Amino acid sequence: MKYISLLGATGSIGTQTLDLIREHPEQFQLVAISAGRNIALVRKIVSEFHPKLVSVQTKEDCETLRTEFPSDITFVHGDEGLVEAAVHEQANIVLNSVIGSVGLYPTLKAIEAGKKIAIANKETLVTAGHLVMAAAKENKVDILPVDSEHSAIFQCLQGEDMKEVSKLLITASGGSFRDLTRKELEFVTLEQALNHPNWSMGSKITIDSATMMNKGLEVIEAHWLFDLPYDKIDVLLHRESIIHSLVEFHDSSVIAQLGTPDMRVPIQYALTYPERLPLDSAKRLNLVEVGRLHFEKMDMDRYRCLYYSYEAGKRGGTMPTVLNAANEAAVNAFLERKIPFIRIEELIERTLEGHDVIDNPDLSTIQDVDLETRRYVHTLL
Amino acid sequence: MKYISLLGATGSIGTQTLDLIREHPEQFQLVAISAGRNIALVRKIVSEFHPKLVSVQTKEDCETLRTEFPSDITFVHGDEGLVEAAVHEQANIVLNSVIGSVGLYPTLKAIEAGKKIAIANKETLVTAGHLVMAAAKENKVDILPVDSEHSAIFQCLQGEDMKEVSKLLITASGGSFRDLTRKELEFVTLEQALNHPNWSMGSKITIDSATMMNKGLEVIEAHWLFDLPYDKIDVLLHRESIIHSLVEFHDSSVIAQLGTPDMRVPIQYALTYPERLPLDSAKRLNLVEVGRLHFEKMDMDRYRCLYYSYEAGKRGGTMPTVLNAANEAAVNAFLERKIPFIRIEELIERTLEGHDVIDNPDLSTIQDVDLETRRYVHTLL
Repeated sequence: MKYISLLGATGSIGTQTLDLIREHPEQFQLVAISAGRNIALVRKIVSEFHPKLVSVQTKEDCETLRTEFPSDITFVHGDEGLVEAAVHEQANIVLNSVIGSVGLYPTLKAIEAGKKIAIANKETLVTAGHLVMAAAKENKVDILPVDSEHSAIFQCLQGEDMKEVSKLLITASGGSFRDLTRKELEFVTLEQALNHPNWSMGSKITIDSATMMNKGLEVIEAHWLFDLPYDKIDVLLHRESIIHSLVEFHDSSVIAQLGTPDMRVPIQYALTYPERLPLDSAKRLNLVEVGRLHFEKMDMDRYRCLYYSYEAGKRGGTMPTVLNAANEAAVNAFLERKIPFIRIEELIERTLEGHDVIDNPDLSTIQDVDLETRRYVHTLL
Repeated sequence: MKYISLLGATGSIGTQTLDLIREHPEQFQLVAISAGRNIALVRKIVSEFHPKLVSVQTKEDCETLRTEFPSDITFVHGDEGLVEAAVHEQANIVLNSVIGSVGLYPTLKAIEAGKKIAIANKETLVTAGHLVMAAAKENKVDILPVDSEHSAIFQCLQGEDMKEVSKLLITASGGSFRDLTRKELEFVTLEQALNHPNWSMGSKITIDSATMMNKGLEVIEAHWLFDLPYDKIDVLLHRESIIHSLVEFHDSSVIAQLGTPDMRVPIQYALTYPERLPLDSAKRLNLVEVGRLHFEKMDMDRYRCLYYSYEAGKRGGTMPTVLNAANEAAVNAFLERKIPFIRIEELIERTLEGHDVIDNPDLSTIQDVDLETRRYVHTLL
């Protein structure tokens, strides 16, 4: 039995994880959740799944919920509550699907507590991959990818030897604006940006897909998860999102993972690895129906955020922290309609240019730089 | 070090295997070969690789060669010579790339001698899969596929559990005549049939590709190699031969193996499994260059031989033996310009219809039925 602590239970990954728990009650039990401010959904989840511990963002919501449910359910809140959910004694696996670098600290605490980590929160690895992977190694815990691309690579690597890998090929759909020129990007709206062609996801990751920052974060995430240098990680434009990623080996053989876009598949794989459970409700891939798969070269001039990501990743130190924090702040500003779409990458570029890198940063340095970067972006708005 | 006995050394697979031995002298050593009547090439191979034992088809060629080379090289001939090569005491792996069901007996003898088998001779598994797989199990030897499709499936299955496989998807390029109607097939020539769009192969397998019998034989071969029922083995038309085959698992995830068409990759994988050696001379797959991959439904009315293969495979007993022997006889007649292309499948159909199946045939029954079938086809010419 997998006893699951689900961080970010009300988000897109969170609710799909709940679908899986519902589909396999004999395999999965929800023991702890964290959520933000969607209290109506928290109520439903608690009523249906009866977790032992529930963490929400505010003290007020926490106190309200406490009055509504039996006393064997513990309600907590805030950053401390998030950590309590991450280290819950009954959990043997923590699925971290919170959004942004706020996921870092609870991940580190869960690793220290010996929990297996299913990681959907890519910002954690981007901002502090060296700390997370070192902690995982020290505590002998698996970090299992939930992102469809990293899950694909992870699946392709089963039974293989990392020494024989010559390249990772991460596929990218191109996001909402893949058919627009840079000039045309100046006039796009928030609503257009939120309309992803292939995947239904949260708003932050959907905007990140439109800027291609999502792929940049994935490149850095892949670097840490699979311990490969950046010159062995390529990105390939593939409109259909059917091939979720590929691995090339030194004998020229390429292994790929495919499927209809359905996040439940990689989520479930992370939860059940090394086994695969049946997932009867998932639509089977029918390549005859699909008919054609397209591949195009990734254009680093068109997608500046991807270029910045490679540069930040290669530079290392606090540079990826700045990349990620600047992006989070800029995307928030866009979601709040304070800046046009095209300014997201301008803000990131300016912030990266102004940063003096600190090498081998520890956790508190990363947290400081993260905060300073957000403040700096706000001064530019 | 892999000590290789190479059956069918002068054929297409044979010479590509020699390329690999040449490329990795520190890994591979050729200890025995068999060949047919291409004595000029046998001379070159013996001079370059100095195998301990050489088997050729005729006594005359054998005696001629014996006078030309030092006495530490043993020359043998005929069916017995082929078996001597297959069981050579210094060989730890036998690559069987002879053409036709003549490959069966030496394969069984090599298995009994405890040799690992790299099998390119698909007729062996088609005609007597139950005997070969039982012998392999009893003698605890690996049967490693060399066909690009089966190697692809085998690679996709690494690190996976067969119980979690829901389907194999074998890809087919469609062969030389994929763009012709059945009506147009009546007028095709031998030269057109031998012009395969993607792969450079021997003449028997190239004709088998044009009739789609090659894919039918592969379906039966896959049934035996991977121990799956026929309703879990599908064929998919894929013009580019870039995806060499796919495996679908019960969680809906699909793993595929890809590459530019180059038989050295699966040959080398069979020789080095579970390791992969570098193959620097192989052209890397560039999906951007390829641009598009196409998939179409396989049409069982258009490709009758594939239909017959499924039917013969499902019926079992001596039916696949008859399918294979009738095909070998019919293809030979076509190669000798005795029949038009379209008659190949007519001959196979008529022969299958007239056969009374014997269940669980032993080796001598299979050999008898094989011979009778060939004779019967000759009476129809």
